[in-house]
Amino acid sequence: MALIFNLPEDESFAHSLAKGLEWQQGALKFHEFPDGEISIRILTEIKGQELVLVANLHQPNQKLIQLVFFAETARAAGAKSITLVAPYLSYMRLDEISRPGEGLTSRHFAHVLSHYFDRLMTVDPHLHRYRTLSDLYTIKADVVQAAPLIANWVWRNVENPLIIGPDEESEQWVKMIAHEAKLPYIIFKKKRYGDNTVSISAPLMSEYRELTPVMVDDIISSGSTMVQGIKALLASGMKNPICIGVHAVFAEGAQTHLLEAGAVKVVTCNTIPHPTNAIDVSDLFIRMFQEQ
Amino acid sequence: MALIFNLPEDESFAHSLAKGLEWQQGALKFHEFPDGEISIRILTEIKGQELVLVANLHQPNQKLIQLVFFAETARAAGAKSITLVAPYLSYMRLDEISRPGEGLTSRHFAHVLSHYFDRLMTVDPHLHRYRTLSDLYTIKADVVQAAPLIANWVWRNVENPLIIGPDEESEQWVKMIAHEAKLPYIIFKKKRYGDNTVSISAPLMSEYRELTPVMVDDIISSGSTMVQGIKALLASGMKNPICIGVHAVFAEGAQTHLLEAGAVKVVTCNTIPHPTNAIDVSDLFIRMFQEQ
Repeated sequence: MALIFNLPEDESFAHSLAKGLEWQQGALKFHEFPDGEISIRILTEIKGQELVLVANLHQPNQKLIQLVFFAETARAAGAKSITLVAPYLSYMRLDEISRPGEGLTSRHFAHVLSHYFDRLMTVDPHLHRYRTLSDLYTIKADVVQAAPLIANWVWRNVENPLIIGPDEESEQWVKMIAHEAKLPYIIFKKKRYGDNTVSISAPLMSEYRELTPVMVDDIISSGSTMVQGIKALLASGMKNPICIGVHAVFAEGAQTHLLEAGAVKVVTCNTIPHPTNAIDVSDLFIRMFQEQ
Repeated sequence: MALIFNLPEDESFAHSLAKGLEWQQGALKFHEFPDGEISIRILTEIKGQELVLVANLHQPNQKLIQLVFFAETARAAGAKSITLVAPYLSYMRLDEISRPGEGLTSRHFAHVLSHYFDRLMTVDPHLHRYRTLSDLYTIKADVVQAAPLIANWVWRNVENPLIIGPDEESEQWVKMIAHEAKLPYIIFKKKRYGDNTVSISAPLMSEYRELTPVMVDDIISSGSTMVQGIKALLASGMKNPICIGVHAVFAEGAQTHLLEAGAVKVVTCNTIPHPTNAIDVSDLFIRMFQEQ
């Protein structure tokens, strides 16, 4: 039994958790002053309580101060523990120093969160060179996986699907979903030039032409990986694909780029609030809390 | 001897320090990705070196992550120490909890900076209920005072000045400046309602009608305190004032409000880069570094 709080944009996710777990929701207020500073007030009595803070960490830079102020204010008011439920965990992508003087931001960000919170729970973090979150986070860090829910969505909404990974890094998610849904899958090969430029090569797929391509990635950010994937797909004579992302990061224009490139539909999980959210992952956290 | 770095908007201040001290400037690069995350690269060799980071902390929420990443990257690269030169220090105004559940953000912010830096230097922090920065900061924290430079500016630019404090909190700065410049001063009384509404009462001033009012405060933020001060001043038959702020925080429209209310000129120190900057305070840091 814990008290559930949330950052402003995560109200609906927190509400799902509270409802599913039959836990109480606490009230939290931020106020922004004309000079850009913020104040915080926790309006619920929390002394001796275990707290959960729901905060998707998309656009994390502005949120860091909210996390720090919440944790400090809660400790000062006698909270027993604070678990951070971050449906989307940011700063996971820079996981290797490639040039001298570069900062290993994934590790720096993990240090801050590990300092202020007792436990972290997240959906499909972008683990590439790190094996597990424990390589980074010194607090207990649990991962829940969206693959079964995505597989279920595909199974209920798509006829004759073929799961496609737009690049090698997506293979871990694609494999899991294909396995869950007992479906075929293929992985494209990507070369990246800078932040926004990639080229994709697709394997020959004449035998797949009757299937409905479902392109899946963990994060859709600029969308360029998927856009290249869609182009490669259509060039090889396949049908227009459905695009699924776990995390709707969506840099400006990304969704439009996907639709213009030929996606028939863009679907995401609700780890970051977005109009494309169609797969509710709050159940994953409810189950994890219940199983303890 | 230290290596001087700066956040992007503090290039000019850092350059003045480096020039005055004959210390080297280091190169630092931030890159922002389409998803709002940033990366950092320190391009100068820093192993075993003492570092200074110049960062005015106006609009601090976005800068916090830059400070954290700089400190972590510098430590990982073997920096010997890191001094934060923050010409403007933010989060000083909430210095007392007035309602249950409220966060003492001045203390929380001080915790973060004290964790990442070895030393802090700043110009006229807004000390009201705290006596000194050491009540808040656990690292060595030094204050330099702009009063002598402001007094000097008034002395060189204003004929027959009368220094005016728009409210009681401004008295500490006003007194110092008046004392340095050997000038008369008066302090108005303020009542505050909410963030933006204040009323000012001015003492009778018939004997001051021939003097040029110079209204001084440490921070000009919304500008409403000064605007009310100007109104009270003009209502009592005084001349139009010159307005001086140490820190050009200037919420949107603040400068216009002052000019519309009747200020003949708005002048600030360069603790926050702004077109009104007319008083260079970098010398104060140069002297403090040289005196050690």
